[in-house]
Amino acid sequence: MSTFSIGIDLGGTNLRIAAFTSEWERRGAITTPTRVQDGPGAVLDDMCTAVHQLVSECGGRQHLVGVGLGSPGPLELPAGRLLQPPNLPGFEGLELKTELENRLQVPVIVECDANAAALAECHAGSGRTSGYQSLCMLTLGTGVGSGIILNGRVWHGFAGMGGEAGHVPVYHDGLLCGCGTYGCLEQYASATAIARAGEKMVRANSRNGFPAVTARSIAEAAIAGDTGSQQIYNGVGEALGIGLASLVSTFNLPLYVIGGGVVAAWDLFAPAMFKELERGSYIYRLTKPENPSVLEKSKTNVLPAELGPDSGLLGAAMLPFFQS
Amino acid sequence: MSTFSIGIDLGGTNLRIAAFTSEWERRGAITTPTRVQDGPGAVLDDMCTAVHQLVSECGGRQHLVGVGLGSPGPLELPAGRLLQPPNLPGFEGLELKTELENRLQVPVIVECDANAAALAECHAGSGRTSGYQSLCMLTLGTGVGSGIILNGRVWHGFAGMGGEAGHVPVYHDGLLCGCGTYGCLEQYASATAIARAGEKMVRANSRNGFPAVTARSIAEAAIAGDTGSQQIYNGVGEALGIGLASLVSTFNLPLYVIGGGVVAAWDLFAPAMFKELERGSYIYRLTKPENPSVLEKSKTNVLPAELGPDSGLLGAAMLPFFQS
Repeated sequence: MSTFSIGIDLGGTNLRIAAFTSEWERRGAITTPTRVQDGPGAVLDDMCTAVHQLVSECGGRQHLVGVGLGSPGPLELPAGRLLQPPNLPGFEGLELKTELENRLQVPVIVECDANAAALAECHAGSGRTSGYQSLCMLTLGTGVGSGIILNGRVWHGFAGMGGEAGHVPVYHDGLLCGCGTYGCLEQYASATAIARAGEKMVRANSRNGFPAVTARSIAEAAIAGDTGSQQIYNGVGEALGIGLASLVSTFNLPLYVIGGGVVAAWDLFAPAMFKELERGSYIYRLTKPENPSVLEKSKTNVLPAELGPDSGLLGAAMLPFFQS
Repeated sequence: MSTFSIGIDLGGTNLRIAAFTSEWERRGAITTPTRVQDGPGAVLDDMCTAVHQLVSECGGRQHLVGVGLGSPGPLELPAGRLLQPPNLPGFEGLELKTELENRLQVPVIVECDANAAALAECHAGSGRTSGYQSLCMLTLGTGVGSGIILNGRVWHGFAGMGGEAGHVPVYHDGLLCGCGTYGCLEQYASATAIARAGEKMVRANSRNGFPAVTARSIAEAAIAGDTGSQQIYNGVGEALGIGLASLVSTFNLPLYVIGGGVVAAWDLFAPAMFKELERGSYIYRLTKPENPSVLEKSKTNVLPAELGPDSGLLGAAMLPFFQS
């Protein structure tokens, strides 16, 4: 039997657990609803039951490298304590790492879910394909998460909160964000922001025949030729371009990856994103892939994520392998 | 005799050379005009003459650790090649490192001047005083330079252009910058930007009695109670606050240092800077020094530089000591 690790993806809706080999092959997976209303104890029990089942299916504890957990933030790391997760009411202060280690008697590494997704993209997605071991990934979902990987490892900044790129200011005096600030990237490029802009458009135009307004339905309308919906995705691209211009000017990484559910609409937002990034960053203009005078190693690449919604789960399972 | 190194600060106006011990004590200094019009050969000759003189004054070559050179950018590093320095016409493509090493027969390390200044602030200025070895320094002068120090060493990003924070976008669709982009921090917080805003104010108000318009004269007028001049410095502070909010949200460093000539007006721009930074970054609100619930090691500090205009020269001399 080969060695394996177990990843846990703790979401506000679903709890997903899977075993992976060191070659990132999946050996087994369990998905169950997250029993938020039953409290932290019930959710921890569900995690442990699934871990025990997978360990047994994969040949037993002697082959288990460790358990990695990807959790919504904000988190205290490496202590693995939940602070005030907006989608997990009643879980404030939960000691995820300590509680799981006590129950499982194996080492558990807790990481922010967006960082886990970025780690997976680095080692098994667009990073592996393009040959870069350092990247910044923006995950466009309910919010805009971000993770930074430097030389193959998660970068935590200095106070443990590095890489909150969803809260980079893109429009001064822009829309109010849940974090209390105005004009954050998250207010323009998340699925929530797209749906909100879509609802506003539908109301303004009294277009009652429009289907249920989601980021996906707006994308479908845009593909079908609806100009209002196309403008919404242009706005997503412009905000991403401004945010990326900030990141490129400071971090100067070789690879920026756009993931999350919204990336399915890459063709709708990418033209405006690249236009704005070119306009907003002279470093990007100097280092863009189309520039023939730039060395390959100095190029700045912006690519869609290759892994789908499972990247957070795989990244969580990778954590024990990158522990040392 | 103790060991020493020699720093060279190559400016568009002055060429400064000085010897320092490993305790950062100055042992001798030479300043001469930069003979830009006589071409690179003349300037290299002046550097070498000064280096030879200082080496002889400091006890000879056997005690020399190396030579460090701080140069305006853009530079190719570590090769030490000048690209297209706007203030050194005719110096395009100059191989600073190779030319100096051939003439001096000692190792030469070339660094961007803003990075050299940040290194000096880290080891001999506000970094030493506050106990932090990682910082980002913004140098507000003719332009806005920036340098990032991580764990005591210069951070170059990945394509060698990390930390161009002067070109972080702060106002979308703002003023056109020399880099070709609109709304860069440099267009709001440099001495040039302050003087330009001052000239505009003087013209608009037909205030012909106003003294020669410089960043300093505007500061003096602001201190004397001139509200228009105070508003200009409020604008500097607001732009700095927006730029810092981007940096704090991505890098999450413990220390941000504001230096350069404009920092003499700290009291004029700092209130607006902190107000905007608080407004623009929830991470700053969580980690500001006044927040009693934050651990000391997790705090985000923004401080004025402690070293004056010599920080670039000292930082250049530090480079050989941090070579290994």
